[in-house]
Amino acid sequence: MRVQGKSYRSVWLEGRTVRMIDQRLLPYRFSILECPTYRETADAITTMAVRGAGAIGVAAGYAVAQAVLAAPDDPWRPFIAEAAQLVRATRPTARDLFYAIEQVEETVRLASTLAAARQAAIATAIRLADENAAAGERMGVVGEPLLSPGARVMTHCNAGWLAFADWGSALAPIYRAHHQGKRPFVYVTETRPRGQGARLTAWELGEEGVSYVLVTDTACGSLFRRGEVDCVIVGADRIAANGDTANKIGTYTLALLAHHHGVPFYVAAPRSTFDGATPNGEAIVIEERSEDEVLWVSGQAADGSIQRVRVSAEQARARNPAFDVTPVSFIRAFITEAGLISPAPESLAPFIKHGTPVSIH
Amino acid sequence: MRVQGKSYRSVWLEGRTVRMIDQRLLPYRFSILECPTYRETADAITTMAVRGAGAIGVAAGYAVAQAVLAAPDDPWRPFIAEAAQLVRATRPTARDLFYAIEQVEETVRLASTLAAARQAAIATAIRLADENAAAGERMGVVGEPLLSPGARVMTHCNAGWLAFADWGSALAPIYRAHHQGKRPFVYVTETRPRGQGARLTAWELGEEGVSYVLVTDTACGSLFRRGEVDCVIVGADRIAANGDTANKIGTYTLALLAHHHGVPFYVAAPRSTFDGATPNGEAIVIEERSEDEVLWVSGQAADGSIQRVRVSAEQARARNPAFDVTPVSFIRAFITEAGLISPAPESLAPFIKHGTPVSIH
Repeated sequence: MRVQGKSYRSVWLEGRTVRMIDQRLLPYRFSILECPTYRETADAITTMAVRGAGAIGVAAGYAVAQAVLAAPDDPWRPFIAEAAQLVRATRPTARDLFYAIEQVEETVRLASTLAAARQAAIATAIRLADENAAAGERMGVVGEPLLSPGARVMTHCNAGWLAFADWGSALAPIYRAHHQGKRPFVYVTETRPRGQGARLTAWELGEEGVSYVLVTDTACGSLFRRGEVDCVIVGADRIAANGDTANKIGTYTLALLAHHHGVPFYVAAPRSTFDGATPNGEAIVIEERSEDEVLWVSGQAADGSIQRVRVSAEQARARNPAFDVTPVSFIRAFITEAGLISPAPESLAPFIKHGTPVSIH
Repeated sequence: MRVQGKSYRSVWLEGRTVRMIDQRLLPYRFSILECPTYRETADAITTMAVRGAGAIGVAAGYAVAQAVLAAPDDPWRPFIAEAAQLVRATRPTARDLFYAIEQVEETVRLASTLAAARQAAIATAIRLADENAAAGERMGVVGEPLLSPGARVMTHCNAGWLAFADWGSALAPIYRAHHQGKRPFVYVTETRPRGQGARLTAWELGEEGVSYVLVTDTACGSLFRRGEVDCVIVGADRIAANGDTANKIGTYTLALLAHHHGVPFYVAAPRSTFDGATPNGEAIVIEERSEDEVLWVSGQAADGSIQRVRVSAEQARARNPAFDVTPVSFIRAFITEAGLISPAPESLAPFIKHGTPVSIH
């Protein structure tokens, strides 16, 4: 996607250097972070210079490939194993991270020489990035027909190209509709407490030239009640075997609003987000994060500096669940790279088991 | 109610001076603003040192009384009329403000001497403040039986004693239950964009010793879904003849969540908030406020100074509806100083017409 008119991915490889958009500085500063070694790439994952399950996976794949390039001639396998362990320890929950590391390690295991391992590791890491971008593009192709010209789409948090190698999940159909001249209009929810909508989604859409308006999470109900929302598209953190979907806190409320007002609610996610081992939403453990994310807000002061301010009474304590679960009954369809998947058990079960979509058109 | 263990009203008169808690500085600083003349009291209303319909009305009544005290011996009536006009121009929408000014002006009109007018004006302004505090206390008495011991109550925005002379509307039943040892527990919603929950309600409850926890507006759905909310009590800005209720943005979403989860949703408001001239919610015009309230956040920096930071992409535009409308079908009952009012037309209509409550017990 574009930034200041130029095409970018969220993370990419140039020579032996991993480059990425530093998401810690967005939207206030657009800056490319250079990671010449696997240690610096791993550090970028830990410090959240790169965030979003897909983008983290791509960065992790590149990091292991960088380690293979840096391995000494003899013995090279223990060096790579240790480096992969360091990359594995960067973030605890993102499944894509472990998947990418395993894929690169597997190619290394099959190589008989270090030279062959180097070539294979780089090729695999690049393939993983390309597959991630391609999955995003496919979700765009699959989801775009759901948007009529001028459709008013609500989205939550950031499930855009910053969270993937490119395209994104929830935003991919919007980008494709935009490129086709359908002029979609997006309601970007602020997404308290971390404000990914206000900071990242607004920035992404603005750079790509998509029309949008930012609204507080409190304003969404009013928009539904006034009939100003045509559909909702969100991403997902984990989708249980029955279709119950864990996503950023606040998603469930939007799903209920859509359900009550008869507005279609879509979940866009690649196959890797579907978790056949988790039977339903009840089985998904919800992470509670630090109350400081609620009590304090950071942003850019008038002098350009990034400041942190307390927005609550001094003695206040807060609760901060990071995700909530939307029951499958509120979901009209899943937008995946393999097609549109109905939430009906007879469609969802074979998809999760075999990856075969059952068309719902 | 108490602040640092001492009893306060939000606005009061001492001698000829109006004193008030400066709400612009809360929760970061507790400071009493002194207004020795009607001009300074009017200015305090304009600059929102005092806010909340009830508290503004009380301050306006005091301001006109101060003007009567300051009037020259001859001619005194034009001076008072001009001063009342200045007070009337402070804020455009709060109905209580106009009501209070009219009440004090009417006493002045009936007085034949300036000395009599002075005595009557002061007495009327004090009576209005006492009536406002008494209405809050009565709402507490009426609403308290709705709360079981240990009840987990969600509230939105600030409908507490800061918004009235004392007690408040939505928080009055909670304060009364607390005083009775019923140990209510309150979920305080942040209430973006202006954060009245995080700033004012959290502060109020903390000073009074009521247990509470602050949550983002996005977290509410999750709390309902997990069965952690026993009831919701909110205030109101205007209640139409059919019971549809305009209140702070985000209220409608909480009402839908309560409705869907079978949780009672109560609206607490004094009689003056019921507007028989507005047939239903469709007829209530919703104010759109400045987008800067969404794009920027102010709070206290680590050095104690109050800072304003931008929390959104630089080019972002925002929409900022200040209120939304909750349909009467989602409201279990109205908590008023005259009793608990059912939203059924046969209860609500006579109450709005004659002020006679129809018990729903």
